[in-house]
Order: sequence, then structure tokens, then C-alpha cells
Amino acid sequence: MAPSSTCPELLSQLGDLLGPRHVVTERDEIAPRLIDWRRKYTGNALALVKPGTTAEVAAVVRACADCRTPIVPQGGHTSLVGGSTPDLDGRAVILSTERLTRVRDVDPVNNTMTVEAGCILQSLQEEAARHDRLFPLSLAAEGTCRIGGNLATNAGGLNVLRYGNARDQVLGLEVVLPDGQVWDGLRTLRKDNTGYDLKQLFVGSEGTLGIITAATLKLQPQPLEAATAFCAVRDVDAALDLLARCQQATAQSLTSFELIPRIGIDLSLKHVAGSVDPLEGAYDWYVLVEAQGGHGDGGLKAALEGALMQAYEDGLVLDAAPAESAAQAQTFWHLREAVVEAQRHEGGSIKHDIAVPVSSVPAFLTEATAKVHEMVPGIRPVPFGHLGDGNLHFNLTQPEGADTQAFLARWDEVNAAVHDIVARYRGSISAEHGIGQMKVAENARFKPPVELEMMRAIKRSLDPGNIMNPGKVIDLD
Amino acid sequence: MAPSSTCPELLSQLGDLLGPRHVVTERDEIAPRLIDWRRKYTGNALALVKPGTTAEVAAVVRACADCRTPIVPQGGHTSLVGGSTPDLDGRAVILSTERLTRVRDVDPVNNTMTVEAGCILQSLQEEAARHDRLFPLSLAAEGTCRIGGNLATNAGGLNVLRYGNARDQVLGLEVVLPDGQVWDGLRTLRKDNTGYDLKQLFVGSEGTLGIITAATLKLQPQPLEAATAFCAVRDVDAALDLLARCQQATAQSLTSFELIPRIGIDLSLKHVAGSVDPLEGAYDWYVLVEAQGGHGDGGLKAALEGALMQAYEDGLVLDAAPAESAAQAQTFWHLREAVVEAQRHEGGSIKHDIAVPVSSVPAFLTEATAKVHEMVPGIRPVPFGHLGDGNLHFNLTQPEGADTQAFLARWDEVNAAVHDIVARYRGSISAEHGIGQMKVAENARFKPPVELEMMRAIKRSLDPGNIMNPGKVIDLD
Repeated sequence: MAPSSTCPELLSQLGDLLGPRHVVTERDEIAPRLIDWRRKYTGNALALVKPGTTAEVAAVVRACADCRTPIVPQGGHTSLVGGSTPDLDGRAVILSTERLTRVRDVDPVNNTMTVEAGCILQSLQEEAARHDRLFPLSLAAEGTCRIGGNLATNAGGLNVLRYGNARDQVLGLEVVLPDGQVWDGLRTLRKDNTGYDLKQLFVGSEGTLGIITAATLKLQPQPLEAATAFCAVRDVDAALDLLARCQQATAQSLTSFELIPRIGIDLSLKHVAGSVDPLEGAYDWYVLVEAQGGHGDGGLKAALEGALMQAYEDGLVLDAAPAESAAQAQTFWHLREAVVEAQRHEGGSIKHDIAVPVSSVPAFLTEATAKVHEMVPGIRPVPFGHLGDGNLHFNLTQPEGADTQAFLARWDEVNAAVHDIVARYRGSISAEHGIGQMKVAENARFKPPVELEMMRAIKRSLDPGNIMNPGKVIDLD
Repeated sequence: MAPSSTCPELLSQLGDLLGPRHVVTERDEIAPRLIDWRRKYTGNALALVKPGTTAEVAAVVRACADCRTPIVPQGGHTSLVGGSTPDLDGRAVILSTERLTRVRDVDPVNNTMTVEAGCILQSLQEEAARHDRLFPLSLAAEGTCRIGGNLATNAGGLNVLRYGNARDQVLGLEVVLPDGQVWDGLRTLRKDNTGYDLKQLFVGSEGTLGIITAATLKLQPQPLEAATAFCAVRDVDAALDLLARCQQATAQSLTSFELIPRIGIDLSLKHVAGSVDPLEGAYDWYVLVEAQGGHGDGGLKAALEGALMQAYEDGLVLDAAPAESAAQAQTFWHLREAVVEAQRHEGGSIKHDIAVPVSSVPAFLTEATAKVHEMVPGIRPVPFGHLGDGNLHFNLTQPEGADTQAFLARWDEVNAAVHDIVARYRGSISAEHGIGQMKVAENARFKPPVELEMMRAIKRSLDPGNIMNPGKVIDLD
């Protein structure tokens, strides 16, 4: 890892700014930061730097900007699309937010907290709970992902149906811009119409426009009740009818409405310890429904069960198990999580993180399932996920006994075919994982050219030197 | 109204594009479009054009762009900050969206509708209701304002507490860009992380970056129950404590939490027919609380009343009247609306549309009230509005018997003093009305220079000719 030829002093300059121990060049320490979570992308870097304050982030960015040195921001480094992994040329500096972990302020009356980008998501959920509030963002990586990365990628997760994506949790941002200026946009207001809503540009920009160093987040009241049920449904159309009924009955308190196909249950029972089928019969499709809210009078559970009972009488629901305890709800969730793990035991899986309009899910599933069966006879689709948001993880397990490498070699070809179908339903080829480096080219196949041009115009106007996470999200050429 | 000297053919070209009757130059017909709703700003224009399709909007914009002719978009022309009024030089073309009134699609399963920009807000509420859905955006001008303008200004209104601002109702936009290209961003998805969320730039940009021609809007289930109460509270601190209790008790189903001072009641009883004080005693501060949602079992009303009863026992609430019928709730709302009208009968009012963090409202009110009393002895503050959002209309009625013109002549001076206090609480000088032309200079006093520069960079990159609603929101010099 040689210093950049154009700026031989950069490393020592960074050492002066941060203290030498926060400028890491040792190969062993840096190695895990050069490979992504899914181990699909490996890069190289000049150094890993760990600023401890916003002012230090700004100083690092100014120094790098002067040298035209690319900066790759890293939070928890849990990107599923290679969004926080540098490229191979080794000129980049990886800027980790891991030392920016202060909770600057909690205001329970305003229902806000202002926190630094390096705070672990789970620690923020806990901080909110200490103030008798809920911070609802929740996702699988919450024990290691950092809020700056959650915001930069507009993370989704388990509670989107009720509380929205990461974007919807933000009232204000502090951002270090590509020229090293600090934008203090840490507003704590529910209403503010004083110009372009710039924070929205940074949320979801995956570090390509600046580095989020702090954020003011919305807090919610702690829900007084929860109600969970595991249901077999007639088909996916019936699931959608059930969704609308449950939303109305619970006053839109549904936090989750997760679709699971029978094969997901079967594979979980086969491979994952602790998996229990909550229902006696075998059915094609299931939904895991959860609502949180209510008035503390048991009305929420009664309302959900009333809607399920009516749906049963109407033939939409074929069987249902309402959770009679938190522990039982836990076993339902265990089964939902097991679907992910179980697939690993069956060989390779080709994955998709797609969304279509909720009303188009049944038609999409029929069409996409037929297409992949045609392409790979014996393929085993395990489409599951956030039906309430129209967001499915359309995962495809290899045929039984097939060669895993040969199957996985068809990843791009199968992705392209599925994405073509998604596009016909005006869907999204990346509902919650972002573009990173993995989907830059694929995204450009579907975005209107005028939209790509606007994205480029904005990128160029805010980052004319293209030093912020170059190669991610949008190709400038 | 002479044709632009630089482009003598423009008017006839526009006539060819739209048909002559949709290119209005008659002074009588154009006159009302040249003056703003509050009659503070008068402008001039080359013509008023009324395209009937997105393609026609695009053709008009291309023609104007070729001539560097400014375009002032107009929806319902109900701006309170001169946002849709042209300047005096007479070169501008006013582009009205009034013929873009198609509802293109309603999808109750996806809970979305796609509508054109010229649809009247109230007609969209009615369209949603026809499909057994709720479109929750609601504000005083809803009978005449158009959705394009609501989105371009990120309108707030009465249901923000539960459903958010106009921004939160949008899933996708169709926009004619300053060069006449059409961006089809009419997504209908709850989750889509495929690049910068460009629609967020256009929402709240007040027509300075492009013309919104259509939008995909979120629909909600119709609430099963409503509960309304009128309460006297100990003080504004107690009101905030009550807010948090009601939010938790109703599972965040509060749609409104409106603050009213005693003087607002007194003036309403004096001047506005049909005003009735719901409570027997006289108290300094009141809140009108409304919740919508529930499970159809009466639990919402019971929960709200339970919270009020506990707050009464704890000394936060001094007296309360829960509405026993929709008609009684209506009388509470009549009183709330009367507060606005009543002020007109007492001479001049200097107005503010401010927001501060909810937790800072009591301190802000104390400080700002003292300041304006010091500036204008005898002044009568009537601070009322959306306490739940931290958004107050800090309106100041003239001293009894004072000279109205002399009082109103101090508008800017009083605004500046109040805004200085707002800024110390990191508040907003325009919570829901936008910047328009009225607050461009005042806004620039408070925005961080780096933020103004980003706004300019974006404006220049998307509208290099500065033809879209020039002079509004941001000064480019």
C-alpha cells in the first residue's frame, strides 16, 4: 500500500490530523474492510482512517479533496451491494465512522434524538427505550450496522409498513460535503418549508454526495399492545385482501405483513433447529401478521382476530394461529427468519430484492416463477418477505442435486430476466438494499435517461471532483 | 402586454401549440392572475397559457426556454407568500395547470392514485372516498387549491400530526424540466432504493426546478372512529404533557392538537356568529384534540377520555368537553376556525408562520410575547395553531384603537424580531407557507451560507437559464 503518487504527503498529513493510531495502513487490520459482507467484491485502499469528530471528518475530506483522493465512507460495512467497498486501484481512503458514537441529545417532549453517524442501530433503539420512546428502524444487521449507513442507504427492514423507511425517521442531518465544508442541517422540526429539502438528497445517496456525520431522528411512543398471528391464506390475492382488512381493522397499526411460501416452511423444518409449523395442515402460502399500538384495552388483538375470523369465513384465510403470548409470537418470527437460513443448506441461491406495486404482486409472482422455471428446470423459488410493502426477496434455490457453481454462474442472466419482468410492472430492482457497485449497470438499463442525467448533474454540482464513493450508485460517463 | 422583444414569435407559437383560446392575453382575464391572494404583490405577464396535457406543458416550456422567457407556474393561485405571482417586468408566461385535471388511475389495493397537477385538492379527497379510502391532506384552501401547488409547496394543514406533510403523501412525480424534457417518475412503490430520490427535490421547490404535471399519491384506510375534545389546560407546558399522553393512549392516532389562547375565544365570541365557548369558566389556554382511527369498538374515544381524565386528576387539564356527537365536534372546529376570522374585526394583524421544536414552544411563546409587547405596547398576541407539530401562527392583533396602517407599517420590523427569536430556538420562519417572493431575503438571513450555496448549485444545474419561477425561494446572486 504505497502512498498516492500524486500526494506523497497525504498519509502523514492524515496522521497529523487524527493521530497516527487512527490512520491504519497495516494489512491485517485493513483487510476486512476491503471485502464486502457477501464476499463478492474485494478492493484496495491507501489507508483506513477513523476520525473522532465532525471537524476531523471535515479535515480528512479537505486533505483528500486537495489530493483528489477518493473517499469510501464505511459505517457497519454491512452493505449487500458492495456499497462500502473500495475499488482495486488502491488510491482510496476508507473513512470509518466508528468513532462518531455520541448521542448528542435526546428530547422526549419533541420526540427526537440527535446522534452521530457511527452509533450502532441497536444502541439507538435501546437509547430510545431508556426514554420510554420507540426508535422503530429495525433490520437483520441492527447489532452491527451504523445509523449513518442506514440513512445513507435509506434502509428498510421490518417496520416499514407502519413507520416508513429510514428516510422517514429523519428530521435533520449534519453532512461533511465533498469540499470539506460542514453543513449543519440538524433541524428538529416537523414542519419547515424554507427551501429545497436537501437532507433528502443525502438520504439514499450511499455516500456519493457527502458524509453524514450526525442526524436528528424521530422518536415514537412505545406501543401499548402487540398482536401477532400466523395464517395460511388461499392464495396471494387473498393475502392482499387480508392486508387491506387488517389495515382498516387495526387503524393501520400493522408493522409487518410477511409472505412465506410452503417451501420456506418445509426447508426450515428440515434444516433449522427450533422451527415449528404453527398450523396442522400444509398450505401453499402463509402470512405472518403483526400489529403494534392499541389503547391498552386489548382492542388491538381483538380487532386483528376479528378481521382474521371474518376472512376465514370468507374463504381468504384457510387456517390461523393468533399468538397467545410473546413467546409464541417469537416462534412465528423464528420460522420467518429460518426461511433465510434454510436456503443455505440446499446449495446456491440466486437472489433478488425487488418491489412491485402491492396490487401487482400476484401477477408478478406467476410470471416470474414461470420464467425462471423455463430458464432453469427444477429451480426452487422461495419468494418471501415484506408483502405489505410490495417488497419480496425473490430468492431462487438451485434444483435438487444440481451443481452449485454452474447454477450460480447464471446469476446475472436470471437477475436480468427477473428484472425485466419487474420493470414491466414498474417495479424496483433494489427495494431496500441500494445500488452500491453491484447494480450500477443494471440500474442504468431501467432508469429513464433523463433521470440518470439529473442524477449526474446533481452529483457533478455537489462533487465536481468525483471523490465521494466513486463508482457507486451512478456511472458518470 | 407587448410580445417579448427577444422572441416576437413566441405568442403565436404558443397559440399554434395550444390553440389560441388557451393563450390568454386579454387584460381582464389575466388581471386576477397577476395579483396574489393576500393582495401584497402585483406583477405583469406576456400571457397566461393553459396547456391541456403533459406534452403541451413540455412544448410550452421548450418554446419559452428557446426564448429565455420566464415561466411562472400557477395552480390554485392561493399562495400566501406571492409564490405564484410574476414580477413586474412583463416578460413572464404564466402557466396554469387548471386543465390538467385527469385522475389517471386509482388502485385501492396498492393504496395509490395517480392524478394530474390541476386536480382540486377537495376533489381528490372525494375521489379517494369513492374508493373507500382516505386522502388525508386537508387545509383551508382545499376547495380551490390544486394538488400540483400543494406538492410544489409541500403544504401542511390539519392532519400533519398523523399523516405528515404533502411530501409524505407522494410516491412518484411526473415533472416537465426546465429544458422541456418530461421526467416520468410516477413510481407507485413503498420501497425503491435505486438512486437519488429526485422527487424530493421538486416537492417544496415552489416551481423553481420544474413543473409538476402529475403525481402518484398514497391513500389510507378510512378511519373507523373519531374522537374530539376541547380542553382548558393549566399552561402550555401542561399542553405538551397532555400531547404525549394522548399520543400514547391513542396509539398515535391524533390528527390534530390545536392550541388556542383565551383571547382567541373572546374575539370569536364577540365577532363570529355561531361561536360557543364549550366550557363554563375562562382559562388562559385551550387545546382542541382530535384522534381518528380505532378499531370500531369505541376504544379510541375511551382511550382519549381516559387520558384526559388522568390529566385532569394530575392538574394538567382544568376542564374538558369531549364531543358527544359529530355535530358537537363541528362546533369545536367552528370555534377554532373563528379565531382566524375574528382577528380581522379587530384591525390589522402582523402574522408569522413559524415552527420551533415542540419542547421549545413554551419558552418561545414567553420570549416572543414579551418582545412584541416591548416593541408595541398594547399589542394583542393571538398565538394559535398546530401545537402538535410545533407550528404556530404567531399572529399579533393591533392595540385597541390604534391606527391600523401605522401598525401594519411595522410588519417587517416585528417579523424580523420574532424570527430572530425563532432562529435562537433553531426554528423555521416558514413552517407551512413556503418562501415564495415574500421571504427570500428573510430566509437568507438565517440559512447557513453553505446551504444557500447548495440550493444555488442545484438550481443552476437543473435550470441553468433560470427560467422556472425566477425570483422565488432562492436569490441566485
